[in-house]
Amino acid sequence: MFKKSIMALALGTAVVFSGAASAEEKIKIGVSYPTPTHAWAAGMNWHAEQAEKRLEELYPDVDLILVNSPDPAAQASALEDMVSVNQIDALVVLPFESDPLTDPVINVKESGALITVVDRGLSKEGIEDIYVAGNNPELGRVSAEYMKSRLKEGDNIVILRGIPTTIDNERFDAFMAEIEGSGINVLDHKHANWNRDDGFEVMQDFLSRFPDIDAVWAQDDDIAIGVVAALKQAGRDGDGMFVVGGAGMKETIKGIMDGNELQPIDVLYPPAMLATAMDVTVAAFKSNGPVAGRYILGATLIDKDNAEQFYFPDSPF
Amino acid sequence: MFKKSIMALALGTAVVFSGAASAEEKIKIGVSYPTPTHAWAAGMNWHAEQAEKRLEELYPDVDLILVNSPDPAAQASALEDMVSVNQIDALVVLPFESDPLTDPVINVKESGALITVVDRGLSKEGIEDIYVAGNNPELGRVSAEYMKSRLKEGDNIVILRGIPTTIDNERFDAFMAEIEGSGINVLDHKHANWNRDDGFEVMQDFLSRFPDIDAVWAQDDDIAIGVVAALKQAGRDGDGMFVVGGAGMKETIKGIMDGNELQPIDVLYPPAMLATAMDVTVAAFKSNGPVAGRYILGATLIDKDNAEQFYFPDSPF
Repeated sequence: MFKKSIMALALGTAVVFSGAASAEEKIKIGVSYPTPTHAWAAGMNWHAEQAEKRLEELYPDVDLILVNSPDPAAQASALEDMVSVNQIDALVVLPFESDPLTDPVINVKESGALITVVDRGLSKEGIEDIYVAGNNPELGRVSAEYMKSRLKEGDNIVILRGIPTTIDNERFDAFMAEIEGSGINVLDHKHANWNRDDGFEVMQDFLSRFPDIDAVWAQDDDIAIGVVAALKQAGRDGDGMFVVGGAGMKETIKGIMDGNELQPIDVLYPPAMLATAMDVTVAAFKSNGPVAGRYILGATLIDKDNAEQFYFPDSPF
Repeated sequence: MFKKSIMALALGTAVVFSGAASAEEKIKIGVSYPTPTHAWAAGMNWHAEQAEKRLEELYPDVDLILVNSPDPAAQASALEDMVSVNQIDALVVLPFESDPLTDPVINVKESGALITVVDRGLSKEGIEDIYVAGNNPELGRVSAEYMKSRLKEGDNIVILRGIPTTIDNERFDAFMAEIEGSGINVLDHKHANWNRDDGFEVMQDFLSRFPDIDAVWAQDDDIAIGVVAALKQAGRDGDGMFVVGGAGMKETIKGIMDGNELQPIDVLYPPAMLATAMDVTVAAFKSNGPVAGRYILGATLIDKDNAEQFYFPDSPF
């Protein structure tokens, strides 16, 4: 395979005056995802760009074409261009929404390209060759497992949920299933919509109603920022209570590395999953190992021992 | 990351007279699996060696240490050496058996190494960081789907099963669930133990009892060899019947490429899965993308269109 790269380079030199022929030697992989409009997505975009640089340096005959799109129609049109203009050999796609992108991805598949779908599924089964995604039930389960390791029977927690969606339900249901039978009381749960301001407001309400809270499951690092702000404003950040967020925001991870007792851990829902998807898609052309399949990334518990490997100080998230 | 490799090389040059220090710069990954005693395992061994060559060429600072062991005790002892002698940073292990290898792998984990488990699980949950495996239910489902695409209501099939195990049950149950309601008759199913001779005997019995068979699900390429031999001996290989095996044996794949109508497809249970596991384990040290999680490889249908990418003429399998 290393030999192949060298061969491609040699060919590239030989046909240096004929751009088209040289370009045809390249393995072209389109990477399509929504324009980042929130912090997690900005982190995803940054990690995709890092992976592009890394993989193109490693394999001179691989050309990764990154395109982000502001809405589903623009993404559909970007996919068309990837086939007609770029003539891609493979597509890595994080669909804006499932329904409007299903037929456009089918069209890319029909051009013969390998299809890798990331994070959210399409509306029809069996389109993608590779599926790479986070693990929402596991995020809930791992968070509850940590609560059980820190709390005892009779202790009280509150839960801030995300936007009412399947994702939120999967996380919440798995958390509740794991906590069941532990004797830990869930005082209340309310939606805070993966949003800092909502996190602040919901937590203010919880603090006014419940004088004795031992821990908060905020599910998400943005919500957790609002929760911590409410705790500080109420002067209840020093009474031993701790907050568990989720996602892997760099400020949260830095805090874990620095020994922040208010947010001692985080649970990963990796913004870098697009980089993993790019790795396995490139491996389809470079490895003797098979790549088709379902790769469900773990909801890794990030604590002081492993935080450094999830800390990317230059990432926006 | 590419910069890191160059740095490691530079350091290697600087400390060229101090072998130990130079070796310490290397990322050491142990790869432990059973000594190949049958064809599929020989293929696995070959693919692991290919991946070793490829990955060490690609990353000069990665050292893959391949050890195969003739029994569970020997494998446990090999794992001990990998920690005490080689001081590995990560382990890729295809356990001989689940029970006797569970504690030895826990010991490797406690040394701080990343753990990738391949193909069969350990007896306790949550030990491995990465799990890479084939998909047995999907192998059954994909095989049945193909039967449905070729056969019509009232057509007859026979099934040769593997060794009575969970693996065989998963494959068989998923096949039967998919075939249900199609009107295709399953005349009989009998265990042929993933073995050529048993495949021959069971198929002889089926041929003597059933004058009208339209297709055979042999589940496995070794069984299929026995089936085809029985068909030829009985002179019934030319009556339009077809045989579906499974695994991805190179002779079967070559036949598909050459248009063999008796075995027109195969369903992948990839002997190269150890190579995939090595790829994702190396990525833990080289990629910005997360790797922890469950990677369940697809049971890809291999037909004339894609057979070439699964054909490795130099592999023993």
